[in-house]
Amino acid sequence: MLSHPEVDVYPSRVLDEPRILDREDPVVYGDPAHGPLTQEQVASYQKNGFLFIDSVFSPAEVEAIQQAKDILWDQPATATRPEVIREPESDSIRSIFAVHRDDAYFKGLSQDPRLVHIATQLLGGDVYIHQSRINFKSGFSGKEFYWHSDFETWHVEDGMPRMRALSMSLALTENLATNGPVMVIPGSHRHYVTCVGQTPENHYTSSLKRQVYGTPDRQSLSFLVERGGIAMPTGRPGSLLIFDCNIMHGSNSNITPYPRSNLFLVYNSVENRLQHPFGAPMPRPDYIATR
Amino acid sequence: MLSHPEVDVYPSRVLDEPRILDREDPVVYGDPAHGPLTQEQVASYQKNGFLFIDSVFSPAEVEAIQQAKDILWDQPATATRPEVIREPESDSIRSIFAVHRDDAYFKGLSQDPRLVHIATQLLGGDVYIHQSRINFKSGFSGKEFYWHSDFETWHVEDGMPRMRALSMSLALTENLATNGPVMVIPGSHRHYVTCVGQTPENHYTSSLKRQVYGTPDRQSLSFLVERGGIAMPTGRPGSLLIFDCNIMHGSNSNITPYPRSNLFLVYNSVENRLQHPFGAPMPRPDYIATR
Repeated sequence: MLSHPEVDVYPSRVLDEPRILDREDPVVYGDPAHGPLTQEQVASYQKNGFLFIDSVFSPAEVEAIQQAKDILWDQPATATRPEVIREPESDSIRSIFAVHRDDAYFKGLSQDPRLVHIATQLLGGDVYIHQSRINFKSGFSGKEFYWHSDFETWHVEDGMPRMRALSMSLALTENLATNGPVMVIPGSHRHYVTCVGQTPENHYTSSLKRQVYGTPDRQSLSFLVERGGIAMPTGRPGSLLIFDCNIMHGSNSNITPYPRSNLFLVYNSVENRLQHPFGAPMPRPDYIATR
Repeated sequence: MLSHPEVDVYPSRVLDEPRILDREDPVVYGDPAHGPLTQEQVASYQKNGFLFIDSVFSPAEVEAIQQAKDILWDQPATATRPEVIREPESDSIRSIFAVHRDDAYFKGLSQDPRLVHIATQLLGGDVYIHQSRINFKSGFSGKEFYWHSDFETWHVEDGMPRMRALSMSLALTENLATNGPVMVIPGSHRHYVTCVGQTPENHYTSSLKRQVYGTPDRQSLSFLVERGGIAMPTGRPGSLLIFDCNIMHGSNSNITPYPRSNLFLVYNSVENRLQHPFGAPMPRPDYIATR
């Protein structure tokens, strides 16, 4: 465990009133001119905090990933590995964590050069997987995910020191406007919304199903939306949504028959390895945050 | 009270298994060539079961309607008129019913020739208001509305004999893809999905907040969506969504800061006046279903 700097530049869940702080870190650390992304794409990511690229993986590749996912999903309802998260009101599997660690196929996929080279271009230098999971939001009853910044949680609960990480969401099903796709607030990654309240012990056992702590207030969300609006990137299976660790995002419910499934990979810079949590008594388990 | 025909052509909440029956009624009763709608618009309504027209009311008109709505919304939280429906988990007003009856301004608006002439063209002859309400779905916490056919409820609980009614939803706020707009299943109005279960007494006191009975099954919904897909008409304040009484529709939740508000008017043919409910012991109150 490393010792903390004297001042936490991103305090959250400390004060009684929410505050909006400026981002103290770059968004792009690498060289915009060298890597798989064009300079225009890097500039757009820098400005908006996300980038959507259609058809990064071919239909045949997506089918293979789907099959690998189905094998994981076929575990019995009695399986109680902590990596397997089930719906609050049923036994259906909602997410499986640490697939890059526990499954040879997804380990290989998380090291696919198309993905890793984008991460190294944006984050500047070597990266590792901070978190991975496959999500499945069923049709008819998919629940909403309220607005949140991933970094706020990773900083407070996992001890991620600075904003030098990004997420990639690879769509395994079609993302439509109707089936509760991820919505992002463009530009919100340049603000840090501190949340009120303290983190209870073992918060992760409930927060992965429905988050209560680490929730931004309505006034701050309105501030961000007034400036950046709301973007809802939609596209075919095989499309890739890349987004900064601090962008505000969430999704509405899904009453359509169309399920939504995606592979979620978080790349963190090796210069940004986890320390002791900045606002929680104990770090979360390794399957949620690689140490 | 009129006596019932011997055979109910639209039985629902009777059998243990859901069934999909054919529509036994026309969709368009009037003359496509005479009225405010073009023949193309009428043909589209006939085929899809809905029609979306942008900017039927001007921005100035919408502002006036908004003001009239705000006056109604300003009643104290202690007001317990049954016409005022509040959110399940708060005192916020979700809907106010019978505004065409209780409020001079909205009475006039419900008789606006632009609206009435569309209704008479599609339904063929004189119409009256079966139901009216103003809906307000707040930002951040707007709840979803699960799929349903209005006619199923109006038939079973209100005694509407045949499919010869339509709804108009006048948007008072912007309908965006992101803020939980109404979704419809095109073509679903030509099928009648019977629901299972019986209607409990005074069902309306809970069903207006969250419906459980009269809910279509997933297999039937998939059948309809495979054939017609899902449409999500979006547009500016002042736009008008006209939809058949039997079209399957619903909406996802709304976590965005953008509220959604609309005036909802149901026109029924005078040839289709209510009888005794086809599947409930007592008719619902007049503010929900005009007799």
